[in-house]
Amino acid sequence: MRDSYHETLDGITDDLVEMSRLVGVAMERATTALLDSDLGLAESVIAADEDVDLRQSALEAKAFDLLALQQPVATDLRIVVTSLRMSADLERMGDLAQHIAKVARMRYPDQTIPYGFRPVITDMSRLAVHIVAKTGKIIILKDVKAALGLERDDDEMDLLHRKLFTMLLAPGYNAGIETAIDITLCGRYYERYADHAVSVARRVVYLVTGEKVAGWRH
Amino acid sequence: MRDSYHETLDGITDDLVEMSRLVGVAMERATTALLDSDLGLAESVIAADEDVDLRQSALEAKAFDLLALQQPVATDLRIVVTSLRMSADLERMGDLAQHIAKVARMRYPDQTIPYGFRPVITDMSRLAVHIVAKTGKIIILKDVKAALGLERDDDEMDLLHRKLFTMLLAPGYNAGIETAIDITLCGRYYERYADHAVSVARRVVYLVTGEKVAGWRH
Repeated sequence: MRDSYHETLDGITDDLVEMSRLVGVAMERATTALLDSDLGLAESVIAADEDVDLRQSALEAKAFDLLALQQPVATDLRIVVTSLRMSADLERMGDLAQHIAKVARMRYPDQTIPYGFRPVITDMSRLAVHIVAKTGKIIILKDVKAALGLERDDDEMDLLHRKLFTMLLAPGYNAGIETAIDITLCGRYYERYADHAVSVARRVVYLVTGEKVAGWRH
Repeated sequence: MRDSYHETLDGITDDLVEMSRLVGVAMERATTALLDSDLGLAESVIAADEDVDLRQSALEAKAFDLLALQQPVATDLRIVVTSLRMSADLERMGDLAQHIAKVARMRYPDQTIPYGFRPVITDMSRLAVHIVAKTGKIIILKDVKAALGLERDDDEMDLLHRKLFTMLLAPGYNAGIETAIDITLCGRYYERYADHAVSVARRVVYLVTGEKVAGWRH
């Protein structure tokens, strides 16, 4: 049987996993709302971010109580402190998915993303969702090898992000300034979302190995 | 005489104040580098971000040692945990100033910001630097009233940010897509920088009053 101390500690990990699931769903739906100009779906993504925020508040409260009442040391202390930072990353990922849904809402009923840009936006979203799914598993399994593998996914996201700019600057681009602004911001949201997910995975590596991964800050 | 426990706790606050000073200087210089196409200054801002990162690492180490060895409770515990989050905001503000310096470096020797956009970029930067200077004082003085006053500054930043988009979308805009992308991203960096500074100030309010400020999450 687990005591209440370890139950709370496990509860914090469960919250992180649930947050990664929620922000993964949010990003997938936000992209669908963006590409299909689906106002209802955009609104539901915007409203659902509240759940992510509540989950983070619950995690913070648990972590604070654990620190105050149980005074964990060594590895447990590191888990609690690191979880606070990870939850902040995940909460921010929810905001970024929400930002994409807000672009869809702002432009409705117009198509925000021109036809030629749909594949790269789809790729960025798929990769972002893939990365956060991996991150969730990495949190559960404390899988350092998988966490290190995420660096390649992050490199791929950077390539897609650069491709977006190349396409915007190509001579044939003719969708105008407003669309260029929307695409620039959405591209930034996908890229930041992936950065935060990779950052969460890096913290798992740190928890397990005590070693910071190169490029830690990004 | 202060004991070592309170010295460490004060040291954490000093680190936060020093980080806000460093990221304020970074933003001021980054904007000068951007507007004057000053490559040397841009490089120095990019290099100086290391100091912010080191300061944050030092703060994290102090906070962790304090939690592990002194097991603070109640208000002191809240200060330590909240400081970790505040330092993450400040570290990110350093990154955002660095991003602006990187735009200046990438476009050098070209002028990134067209003549007509210089006043609004100057205003955004001045306001960002003003906000972080206030935030530093708020951390020192635990000045809740000043922290609440920052909300107005943040509203002004949002207005400037919207003005930037209005100018980009005005019929007379003719500086091209690449410049529109640069301006969109720089605008986003200033706005996020201010958001983080306001978030730090809100955490001071929370520490002093136990009340979360409306709009806490942004």
